[in-house]
Amino acid sequence: MSIITLTTDFGIKDHFAGTVKGALLSEINEAEVVDISHNISPFSILEAAYVIQNAYKSFPNGSIHIIGVDSEISEENKHIVVQLNDHYFICANNGIMSMICAEINPQKIVEINIHDKISTSFPVLDVFVKVACHIARGGTLEIIGKLITDIKPIKNILPFVNDDKNQIIGNVIYIDNYGNVVTNIKQSFFEAIQKGRKFEISARHYKFKTVFSKYSDVVDFNSPEDKRFDEGKGLVVFNSSNYLEIAVYKSNSSTVGSATTLMGLNMRDTVSVNFIND
Amino acid sequence: MSIITLTTDFGIKDHFAGTVKGALLSEINEAEVVDISHNISPFSILEAAYVIQNAYKSFPNGSIHIIGVDSEISEENKHIVVQLNDHYFICANNGIMSMICAEINPQKIVEINIHDKISTSFPVLDVFVKVACHIARGGTLEIIGKLITDIKPIKNILPFVNDDKNQIIGNVIYIDNYGNVVTNIKQSFFEAIQKGRKFEISARHYKFKTVFSKYSDVVDFNSPEDKRFDEGKGLVVFNSSNYLEIAVYKSNSSTVGSATTLMGLNMRDTVSVNFIND
Amino acid sequence: MSIITLTTDFGIKDHFAGTVKGALLSEINEAEVVDISHNISPFSILEAAYVIQNAYKSFPNGSIHIIGVDSEISEENKHIVVQLNDHYFICANNGIMSMICAEINPQKIVEINIHDKISTSFPVLDVFVKVACHIARGGTLEIIGKLITDIKPIKNILPFVNDDKNQIIGNVIYIDNYGNVVTNIKQSFFEAIQKGRKFEISARHYKFKTVFSKYSDVVDFNSPEDKRFDEGKGLVVFNSSNYLEIAVYKSNSSTVGSATTLMGLNMRDTVSVNFIND
Repeated sequence: MSIITLTTDFGIKDHFAGTVKGALLSEINEAEVVDISHNISPFSILEAAYVIQNAYKSFPNGSIHIIGVDSEISEENKHIVVQLNDHYFICANNGIMSMICAEINPQKIVEINIHDKISTSFPVLDVFVKVACHIARGGTLEIIGKLITDIKPIKNILPFVNDDKNQIIGNVIYIDNYGNVVTNIKQSFFEAIQKGRKFEISARHYKFKTVFSKYSDVVDFNSPEDKRFDEGKGLVVFNSSNYLEIAVYKSNSSTVGSATTLMGLNMRDTVSVNFIND
Repeated sequence: MSIITLTTDFGIKDHFAGTVKGALLSEINEAEVVDISHNISPFSILEAAYVIQNAYKSFPNGSIHIIGVDSEISEENKHIVVQLNDHYFICANNGIMSMICAEINPQKIVEINIHDKISTSFPVLDVFVKVACHIARGGTLEIIGKLITDIKPIKNILPFVNDDKNQIIGNVIYIDNYGNVVTNIKQSFFEAIQKGRKFEISARHYKFKTVFSKYSDVVDFNSPEDKRFDEGKGLVVFNSSNYLEIAVYKSNSSTVGSATTLMGLNMRDTVSVNFIND
Repeated sequence: MSIITLTTDFGIKDHFAGTVKGALLSEINEAEVVDISHNISPFSILEAAYVIQNAYKSFPNGSIHIIGVDSEISEENKHIVVQLNDHYFICANNGIMSMICAEINPQKIVEINIHDKISTSFPVLDVFVKVACHIARGGTLEIIGKLITDIKPIKNILPFVNDDKNQIIGNVIYIDNYGNVVTNIKQSFFEAIQKGRKFEISARHYKFKTVFSKYSDVVDFNSPEDKRFDEGKGLVVFNSSNYLEIAVYKSNSSTVGSATTLMGLNMRDTVSVNFIND
């Protein structure tokens, strides 16, 4: 059984996702098609990169991941397949893969070259489905593309560290369903710079001196329940994907508020960490 | 084939649901993973309880239901498995199961105790998936938890009946996709108090004297179509889950309006029934 | 393996879709249930017709498509099965099938007559699931319905052409996830009237003289990237379903804007094409 996942900005109302699933099942009727997300913000390479990076790892080796975001082919936006960590990623060469590739070297990259006869405004259907089924049937990448060595990077995706190594300046790269604000500062990166020092994290005028390992660590369970005031309290965690995240305990953007709504933190905003030398 | 369903507040944009599906398929590659809902309002135990209660019954016996709402473990929020009606429910002991258990006695309840080595901000992935796969492989509950007898209740979930047995005071517990307003008054409960009497249902200043069995019963098909004025008309039905529901015929919250938008009825609002003695 | 698809206005929060999937898997445990869309606007026959028409074709022959939009049975809204192009469609006779049937003649239509004992406010669960499983098991349509020859049409679904054959007046029939505005003018229809002539397309006060075959055709790749101003630019394409569509390059209704938000084009608005005789 081949697992083929879908990560797109198609949304869930239109026929696009259904059409793609139908085409995959028509070619390989025992395919296991799994939706990762169809709600990437339209054309958001950054969101797509974050979501696929965090989702793919839990799938079995050999899984094929179709990423349908900003995938219309042009002379500046070629189609590629990246084989990495024994998974296959089919997408446009628009930066989506650069977040994953910054951590793990690809085993192989090909630029897809089966387009000669295809002019399409629906490349996921007309190109990516064909490539996915080719791979699922055991076909080699060289048959559907030519080997390349580099992919297009996302600019400014890594946080900045000053020369004195006492400050990290990061950015918000994702806002999740709970309104939690995810930065591009990974735990391993943070700790490599930190070297055990105390620190202060700043986001707009909010300051934090602790990073929790789970959300409820903010709660003082020794206090009586009606004197805790923990719901709605801001906190910082390394999230389950190991990124530094500014969160609000039991948040809900539409009711009690969340890190994004209460603190006014949005995509690409700056979050900085100052380390304190004793 | 094991059926494993997912009911969560993950939303459908983030990687959370995809990650969980990947992990389930990695452990049991022939698992049938079925999304029930990922759009429970964040941390809404009441919504999760209503949705899983109404959905689980249609699945085959032996199905395993993961409920990922407010599931971060703490000393006040333990993880449990409830075996009930030959189904398995894996969730936090936060009240989610009390609506189902109020109607059907559980066959077995265990408090999960495999956490010794797990500190996690993603318990659905790190705990519930493991438990679900254990059960799917035929493992017993006693191996992953210790037997307990009681679960945490949701407060005030049952409607109130006055001493004279001529009034029910209920509450709104769910608002559906059509903006229909569902109360906690079940048909069987209503009829047991009613004993054939006439009644008047009040919600804010709206009054109803009839409960329909389907929405289109409000339409007078003998009238010419342009003289019916039935679209947008308020009505009361026992819905397909047998709860008293205030609805609007052919409603749409974003266009013509719905029971919640037109009548201003929201979660936890009061709906009362007065029975009239002849 | 039987493929059964779902196209509904249930939304994705409520238990309705999960309940239907559970019921299908309970009856046919190897069924492959595929979500096409659960986010048709409530009761929108036009949106449902557009989505199912574009999605069904990619599925294998023999697929069974359940369409749960405005499906409550009444004397004016009967249930039907349409066999067409070797696919099966189960829905209410409310116009949903008229868009597909306008292009391809049905092989068979039956009005479902298994309702004698069923009074339901959840017809997709109580009727359509049973019919779908009957068909999936190889049952004939005559057993669950009586043959009929006509279905209810959607009014005004076809564009208007003037007597001089130099003007098409169409309407907006769908707005997609990117805010692109789809009209009811098909490419084949357009070209049959056009007969090679130049033209001007008008939507409100916007005018277009070109129809592209893909979105990025609006970009002048010879210009330096910072002098292109192509994002946010309005354009017209024949979309991947071959309908005339007014779009905005790399649109996003919530950020940079889209054809619907920037040009104020909404469902049922008029779009006209004037052909120019030399």
